[in-house]
Amino acid sequence: MEEVRNHQVILKDYVNGFPKESDMLLKTFATIPLKLPQDSNGILVKNLYLSCDPYLCLLMSKGLVGSFTPGSPITGFGVAKVVESGHSNFKKDDLVWGLTGWEEYTIITTPETLFKIQDTDVPLSYYTGILGMPGMTAYYGFYEICAPKKGEYVFVSAASGAVGQLVGQFAKLTGCYVVGTAGTNEKVELLKTKFGFDEAFNYKEEQDLDAALKRYFPEGIDIYFENVGGKMLEAVLLNMRVNGRISVCGMISQYNLNQEQGVRNLSSIIMKRLLVKGFIIFDNFDLYPNYLEMVIPLIKEEKICYIEDVANGLENAPAALIGLFLGKNVGKQVVFVARE
Amino acid sequence: MEEVRNHQVILKDYVNGFPKESDMLLKTFATIPLKLPQDSNGILVKNLYLSCDPYLCLLMSKGLVGSFTPGSPITGFGVAKVVESGHSNFKKDDLVWGLTGWEEYTIITTPETLFKIQDTDVPLSYYTGILGMPGMTAYYGFYEICAPKKGEYVFVSAASGAVGQLVGQFAKLTGCYVVGTAGTNEKVELLKTKFGFDEAFNYKEEQDLDAALKRYFPEGIDIYFENVGGKMLEAVLLNMRVNGRISVCGMISQYNLNQEQGVRNLSSIIMKRLLVKGFIIFDNFDLYPNYLEMVIPLIKEEKICYIEDVANGLENAPAALIGLFLGKNVGKQVVFVARE
Repeated sequence: MEEVRNHQVILKDYVNGFPKESDMLLKTFATIPLKLPQDSNGILVKNLYLSCDPYLCLLMSKGLVGSFTPGSPITGFGVAKVVESGHSNFKKDDLVWGLTGWEEYTIITTPETLFKIQDTDVPLSYYTGILGMPGMTAYYGFYEICAPKKGEYVFVSAASGAVGQLVGQFAKLTGCYVVGTAGTNEKVELLKTKFGFDEAFNYKEEQDLDAALKRYFPEGIDIYFENVGGKMLEAVLLNMRVNGRISVCGMISQYNLNQEQGVRNLSSIIMKRLLVKGFIIFDNFDLYPNYLEMVIPLIKEEKICYIEDVANGLENAPAALIGLFLGKNVGKQVVFVARE
Repeated sequence: MEEVRNHQVILKDYVNGFPKESDMLLKTFATIPLKLPQDSNGILVKNLYLSCDPYLCLLMSKGLVGSFTPGSPITGFGVAKVVESGHSNFKKDDLVWGLTGWEEYTIITTPETLFKIQDTDVPLSYYTGILGMPGMTAYYGFYEICAPKKGEYVFVSAASGAVGQLVGQFAKLTGCYVVGTAGTNEKVELLKTKFGFDEAFNYKEEQDLDAALKRYFPEGIDIYFENVGGKMLEAVLLNMRVNGRISVCGMISQYNLNQEQGVRNLSSIIMKRLLVKGFIIFDNFDLYPNYLEMVIPLIKEEKICYIEDVANGLENAPAALIGLFLGKNVGKQVVFVARE
């Protein structure tokens, strides 16, 4: 039976607190037979692109639902090509996206969880981003939770990231006024010049976030798309308008702390009748066909754009993942694994 | 023209931080003609009961929408009888409830804001409580925001208060499991023996609120009715179940601080997909007829009860109001002003 090399990114051991690059290991001596086990209902795929997402670092801790297994490859979203199928929904050479392993080849035993890629007239890596989980996150968190109206004031944190860049563009398409924040001047420029945000600022250069928000939103904020938490949320709460909505997608500023920061100003939730709604997009993929129907024409007509930061090769995946928490990525962080 | 005595409770001056009893003054030398000014479209009422509500203390600060005017009587909810009417909706001897003054007689220039009391077969003071603003608050905050289902786990803070005692009883009527917390053992007893809470505890006797909640809710909390904020909210967030709902009615533990406490564990909002919704019941009185239709039969059939703590006379109103923040009241704090 043909055996091929199968480089893997392994979790060395459960992580206490925040992971480091060295908590992962590139295992270079693994091989895999290019054949499904007999009677398998799964599929064997060749991984093409892998997605770096902040939640992956949470799953390196022990005892969470979905925690990784030390010694085994990280699992996350990716784009892959079917090498062999034991499942009637898939055939050789189909392109799919969904949960796969951080390795060159993966046997997926529950292929029902995968999406078959229909439209290949776009970059395949988009299925880790605008056409995948981050895209759905922006779509659901902005349209479904925030129910935006034309003319409303929208604020996006981590605005140049995988999700934020889309929220900003969706908001502009809705006729909102949009301000984004990011952590480098390069990203701030990108927000204004590439993604069409009305304004943007570098939060690291602001002494007083409340004052910054008052400058950019003299009328206050109707919709806040929350990606960071902590002090930014504290300042945002002071600047929300009556009947404002906060879509709580992530709190990346808090994930690498032993104990979360306390957030003040929660009484604004009462005074301003705020809606604060957390979500995990895995619950909402029933809306995925609706989203594709909306977004694919926008991509093809160039009414929306998407920036990716592509790390080249599995060996660079650990650094790319940790880099998310250091703000190193510009746009969606992807790992290129192999050509088709 | 007949002039009568009109004792008034006056705000002496704007308050910085938390008010004291001495920030209010009983003005005993005021009088009022028992006659409306000519061409008035308002009504002249005799005040019978006044409602002590925490929000009143907020309005003693300068610069808020609805801030009181120093030198003038406090305004708040009350039950009153019409002495003379210049408005076609009202006639002499009608009983009304709504915004009135902390004084013996008040001229109400916008009587459209008042509710005419139709059902007088219940204690009139109930219109400051179960049949008034706190009742609507419990109804809207529990049924409309939390959408409770039979068998769900409900936690209520400030549970023996004007609103909490009703939320607990509504939850039992819905078939939920309900635990309440209060700040004295007397109140805790009342929750269990009088209001039918399944369990109750004195938060002042718990070293570790998280541990207490884990003891009372081994399965976690589906619905939290938030009246207090701060450390209790921080512990509740750790104990919410997936898809839980938090109705944010008040944060009384935070109102008397110069700066709010920071609240940790907000990332639970994401992980547990929580809905957190603040509200101010003044926005939702369109549902008042529905509420009365539901609650009046419950009162008459003794399927629900309501405890009031009645201060006797305007001169005791300032202490009664401040007492809310010291947990002195057992049940809804009312001020009796005069017989009909």
